[in-house]
Amino acid sequence: MNKVITVSREFGSGGREFARRLADKLGFAYYDSEIISELAKRTSLAEEYISSLNERCPAPLIPISIGQTFSPAIDVRWEHHNTIFTEQTALLKELAKKSDCVIVGRCADYTLREFNPIRIRLYAELDARIERCKSRADKTEKLSDREIKQKINEVDKARAKYYLFYTGKKWEDALNYDICINTTGKNIAKLVEDFAATIK
Amino acid sequence: MNKVITVSREFGSGGREFARRLADKLGFAYYDSEIISELAKRTSLAEEYISSLNERCPAPLIPISIGQTFSPAIDVRWEHHNTIFTEQTALLKELAKKSDCVIVGRCADYTLREFNPIRIRLYAELDARIERCKSRADKTEKLSDREIKQKINEVDKARAKYYLFYTGKKWEDALNYDICINTTGKNIAKLVEDFAATIK
Repeated sequence: MNKVITVSREFGSGGREFARRLADKLGFAYYDSEIISELAKRTSLAEEYISSLNERCPAPLIPISIGQTFSPAIDVRWEHHNTIFTEQTALLKELAKKSDCVIVGRCADYTLREFNPIRIRLYAELDARIERCKSRADKTEKLSDREIKQKINEVDKARAKYYLFYTGKKWEDALNYDICINTTGKNIAKLVEDFAATIK
Repeated sequence: MNKVITVSREFGSGGREFARRLADKLGFAYYDSEIISELAKRTSLAEEYISSLNERCPAPLIPISIGQTFSPAIDVRWEHHNTIFTEQTALLKELAKKSDCVIVGRCADYTLREFNPIRIRLYAELDARIERCKSRADKTEKLSDREIKQKINEVDKARAKYYLFYTGKKWEDALNYDICINTTGKNIAKLVEDFAATIK
């Protein structure tokens, strides 16, 4: 069976850089925008639209037993969300069957569980995450610390809801991962160097 | 500066075995019962008594502002607790200055922070911890799963209180550690093998 590494990450903890460098170091495939492009082909939805729904929960978590009637607009988005998730899961399984790979987010630690993935979680102190966001920001993008903090909270909340919706589990619960790495004050390249040594 | 590795662990997650094997593998010093013996010498308290207070909180966490009057019995234990903690911290610093070492528990991740330790935390699912407790139990010791579960809860609660009391931080908060490892279904020797490869 191929080796699959999944990377869950708090926003601003350096997860994408970690995953990309780790894949490079190990010679594993790394998929990111390719997933969006392929999903666009398979669902006939626009890439931008798929991106906008990525790792977002389809609707407020209202138990079905309440018998809520969806408005038509919510209904369509709901359907798209679920179509994308189903197609994405099928695609991730195809990719995992094809070669060793590293996948970021997308509930892959759960949906690829039959591949017995190494489930990594990256986290860091809030200040460190704000600093990381600033250092990687586009030079034209000038957000204040408060705005970055707000964005971090929003993105993480959305990811947690998405994860809960599709897995029934808490995104931040360490028991869903094999190893959790604190990136506060750490150089991601060095972390990858160290971690890669544990993969045989 | 010497390399210091601290190991915080949920009861039954294999922390002691991990620490001992890691020290062996790396050729680092590993101290455990030696700490109790040395503290007994330094404080003139019995080893058994020191052991019984180990990683336990001196008193219920009542804010000092409430102005609680301690009973003489509580007062003596309180004093012993604090004496032991102070002596222990001094001793741990001496040991860290002496050589590379691995220390289990004892708030060492916090009290040895000037040594910039690698702070590891081991955790596991409850069922896995119950199984680990059973597999390492003395053959004459026949505890039911329910009794083991109760013991796990009691010990972890005591460790969390102890940690909060002496560090002001939450014991279970991943931000207090550099790396958290889920030992559920894992072989500790293999985990140590992998982890040791990251230490240079």
